[in-house]
Amino acid sequence: MIRTHNCGEIRLKDIGKEVVLCGWVHRVRELGGMTFVELRDRFGVTQLAFDMKANASLFAQANELGREYVIKACGVVAERSSKNLKIPTGEIEIIVDNIEILNQSEIPPFTIEDETDGGEELRMKYRYIDIRRNVVRDNLVLRHKMAIETRNYLNKQNFIEVETPVLIKSTPEGARDFLVPSRMNTGEFYALPQSPQTFKQLLMVGGIDKYFQIVKCFRDEDLRADRQPEFTQIDCEMSFVTRDDVFDTFEGLIKHLFKNVKNIENISFEHISYDNAMKLYGTDKPDLRFGMKFAELNDVAQNKGFKVFDKAELVVGICAEGCAEYSRKQLDALTEWVKRPQIGAQGLVYVKCNNDGSFKSSVDKFFSNEQLKSWTEKLNAKPGDLLLILAGETRQTQYALGELRLEMANRLGLRKPDEFKCAWVVDFPLLEYDEETKRYYAMHHPFTSPLIDDIKMLGSNPDKVRANAYDMVINGVEVGGGSIRIHDSNLQNKMFEVLGFTQEEANSQFGFLINAFKYGAPPHGGIAFGFDRLCALFGGTESIRDYIAFPKNNAGRDVMIDSPSGIDDEQLKELGLKRTS
Amino acid sequence: MIRTHNCGEIRLKDIGKEVVLCGWVHRVRELGGMTFVELRDRFGVTQLAFDMKANASLFAQANELGREYVIKACGVVAERSSKNLKIPTGEIEIIVDNIEILNQSEIPPFTIEDETDGGEELRMKYRYIDIRRNVVRDNLVLRHKMAIETRNYLNKQNFIEVETPVLIKSTPEGARDFLVPSRMNTGEFYALPQSPQTFKQLLMVGGIDKYFQIVKCFRDEDLRADRQPEFTQIDCEMSFVTRDDVFDTFEGLIKHLFKNVKNIENISFEHISYDNAMKLYGTDKPDLRFGMKFAELNDVAQNKGFKVFDKAELVVGICAEGCAEYSRKQLDALTEWVKRPQIGAQGLVYVKCNNDGSFKSSVDKFFSNEQLKSWTEKLNAKPGDLLLILAGETRQTQYALGELRLEMANRLGLRKPDEFKCAWVVDFPLLEYDEETKRYYAMHHPFTSPLIDDIKMLGSNPDKVRANAYDMVINGVEVGGGSIRIHDSNLQNKMFEVLGFTQEEANSQFGFLINAFKYGAPPHGGIAFGFDRLCALFGGTESIRDYIAFPKNNAGRDVMIDSPSGIDDEQLKELGLKRTS
Repeated sequence: MIRTHNCGEIRLKDIGKEVVLCGWVHRVRELGGMTFVELRDRFGVTQLAFDMKANASLFAQANELGREYVIKACGVVAERSSKNLKIPTGEIEIIVDNIEILNQSEIPPFTIEDETDGGEELRMKYRYIDIRRNVVRDNLVLRHKMAIETRNYLNKQNFIEVETPVLIKSTPEGARDFLVPSRMNTGEFYALPQSPQTFKQLLMVGGIDKYFQIVKCFRDEDLRADRQPEFTQIDCEMSFVTRDDVFDTFEGLIKHLFKNVKNIENISFEHISYDNAMKLYGTDKPDLRFGMKFAELNDVAQNKGFKVFDKAELVVGICAEGCAEYSRKQLDALTEWVKRPQIGAQGLVYVKCNNDGSFKSSVDKFFSNEQLKSWTEKLNAKPGDLLLILAGETRQTQYALGELRLEMANRLGLRKPDEFKCAWVVDFPLLEYDEETKRYYAMHHPFTSPLIDDIKMLGSNPDKVRANAYDMVINGVEVGGGSIRIHDSNLQNKMFEVLGFTQEEANSQFGFLINAFKYGAPPHGGIAFGFDRLCALFGGTESIRDYIAFPKNNAGRDVMIDSPSGIDDEQLKELGLKRTS
Repeated sequence: MIRTHNCGEIRLKDIGKEVVLCGWVHRVRELGGMTFVELRDRFGVTQLAFDMKANASLFAQANELGREYVIKACGVVAERSSKNLKIPTGEIEIIVDNIEILNQSEIPPFTIEDETDGGEELRMKYRYIDIRRNVVRDNLVLRHKMAIETRNYLNKQNFIEVETPVLIKSTPEGARDFLVPSRMNTGEFYALPQSPQTFKQLLMVGGIDKYFQIVKCFRDEDLRADRQPEFTQIDCEMSFVTRDDVFDTFEGLIKHLFKNVKNIENISFEHISYDNAMKLYGTDKPDLRFGMKFAELNDVAQNKGFKVFDKAELVVGICAEGCAEYSRKQLDALTEWVKRPQIGAQGLVYVKCNNDGSFKSSVDKFFSNEQLKSWTEKLNAKPGDLLLILAGETRQTQYALGELRLEMANRLGLRKPDEFKCAWVVDFPLLEYDEETKRYYAMHHPFTSPLIDDIKMLGSNPDKVRANAYDMVINGVEVGGGSIRIHDSNLQNKMFEVLGFTQEEANSQFGFLINAFKYGAPPHGGIAFGFDRLCALFGGTESIRDYIAFPKNNAGRDVMIDSPSGIDDEQLKELGLKRTS
């Protein structure tokens, strides 16, 4: 054993003990005739003390230690005269007898501090050094805890984790697959899974009853800021369940995680339909930490002569509490904000509810005070509040007001990072119509069951059919989604028909699943959580990249190992391939 | 909730309860006016009873149920008149009020029994049905338990599980990589990891201290019977440790698994050097459940006029207890057995130790009874035992006798499936010389540390240098292997020199790791276990395929989903590739 303790565990009770510590030299401070070295490892920082008078050569040795040198220090635990109560080891120090340099270090390219001087690109290139920083390491420890607690909860609930294959088969529907050429079967390809969806359904057919897996998935998409080509899911499926069983089980999981990872209890779940979420919050992933619900103003604001409203499909507003004092400049800035292409509104109408009961609005000339008052009543506004109103095509206007609602909440400090509001968003539309290809697409996937009550509309009114699908949304983040699946082959055939698949097309794409369903498929349903995102939510930051040990950049590149990279033509030749250019 | 109980949990204490069960119709038996349906799910089998007299139409319905139909049954728990004490639910049955067919089933292609009538190929094609069989499902449940217990043990030991990337970079050394063409970086490729070796070492540089991961790895090798292109490792690495720390930690893991998965205690570990393993058992993965150790006979068997022995580098034998009665025919068969190409011996010499103290040997005419006696003394043979002796080139002869030793142990029933003997095989050679390319190769990998005492021979006598590497061997199966790594860059450079790498070559292949080591690499070491094989060992069968939910066949093909498969030229074109033929 090289060390007796790690750098985070020695306390006052250990005073007088002979100890051996190993770690990295975090900081060296000379103070009069004393030198103090902060020795750091994953577990903490312990102060090493060197007294010039007691041992001049050892003292000199300590002063020559460079930043990030790896050393072993032997000594005796002593009480510190000047204590640092901010860290758990801050009441003691080690009076060192002897040090050994286990490895030297070049000067690192950035400081190993919570607030480092290293830019993102540099930190990614030297990720192995970045990981030494508390903030990055804590994120990885959090992720580990989340995974352990998830597994232990699901294990207790009789789920078994089953590893599904990574080398699978390419399917043309959905996002783009990563392909893997087969050398043993030249000219043929494996694909990396976008999710284990079909395999988990096959496991249900196989009677596994309750399956889960924390599993890597892959999508060859053009990457947006917060997407990774490889990402991790908590993938789950259960047999003989209704939607409510799924809700109970996975509310249980999330409550377990909040309790055991963040020590937060009293988490509750709201249920909200997709339609209501759109109507009240303009999004299918509403942040419910605050109200600021939408109110439709069509009946009170249209046909009063203001053309912008009159020709709009939807006039809708929110009430920003206590914002009546906003200056002209602030309101103009807000108008510019909603007119940016990312938001896409045409303009912004405001109504200030003055403290004297009067109103001041950007559309004063079209509406009387009485009329404006009827708007404030719809929005439950009080004196001092500010109404913000958008108009236009329904979905677009809902979206823009949804974004404005979040922006106002940010300004008002309503999105508290230590508060968590969970919801199930339910009753999604089953199908989306694509104008370009003139056909319906499954919003989730073709095996999602419609709500039983809506099955009768599948032929006549497919737009109206709701899916037995659900998303879990926490603080405005979609952390998971799933559905009850179709297990009845007649309904499945009907579904393929609506989607415009011929029997042959259905067979060629989903043949083995359709075939499996002939041999006694149980009713089943499930959910998949985006594990990276769930970790980010629990960690309280936005970027999933912070919770991935070795992430790729927006070009899908690992800048640390410089991958992807060129390969020998010989390797390509073995695969029966050559470059086109 | 569709069901109130699963099919494995109802007991006598539940008599009188109204219950709802769901599952698969395992068997339907009509007996006089009663029909009994065995309803099966993952958790067990419960008997459903239907009385013709009580409800004729329900009785008729029950008799129409087909094998593997999925049903829901409501009824009341009753005590069985004829109990089946072989199963936990065998004392009760359900007097059914009502059944609902949730799904029909075609007749499955093979029976869902422990001893099925389905051949391997058929069962692989319908793996989702095969999984319903107890034996297959139990293997998957065992694997799940092994994974959960591994994680909980390592978590308690302060390890954290860190996910390393799956899309990495191809390296020319080692086995062949699977490649993944990048679409966003056309002409460049990712590779799938053969192991997370470099990443786990980077995590040590990053101060993670104790890392593990249960992780898929990939090797594009021509597959032997018991290899899979994708396989799972328990991958581990620790900082500031010696070999003994690694041994303690992972003996602890294996003991934990034996206790918690198989309820076996008193597991102990032998240590044996590579040299001794080869000398005593002819293999670096000896089965230590039985003795039958080799004894070298050169000094007593050579230079007595028997040319085969005289010209041999090694004359070596084992003693098969109680086998002196082997017939001429049996001995001839054994001789044929060792002469098969897989074993490769030139012939077999035997000595029977007769009960009267005399000896009977195939080389009687070259050796006196007294001389034969000296052999038996070397091998501690008693009257009634049989000596089996091989001669030839050392390694080849050791190998052949090692195989013969296992074969004799099989015949003698010495390889008991419920007995477990664990060992660490240590002090492997660091390097292997390849005659073809006239250079040394690292037996493990170029980052494996030599034993400190042997470093001085690295330049002068590289063949003799032992590695600080170790394998864990249980019952003759290599379940894991690892080493203490080089953390000193001078030693690393020396190692590259011995391996014939120029600085440029070393940098181009291992640049980012070499670079990382400049910034304070701690002393570290680790191990990786073959998880599939470990599960097979615990499960008591030989094939790892039995412990993989959806395995591939020897051609690397998943016959269930028919993968790998052809893809559209369009997909290839997007990747900047075309077929060469």
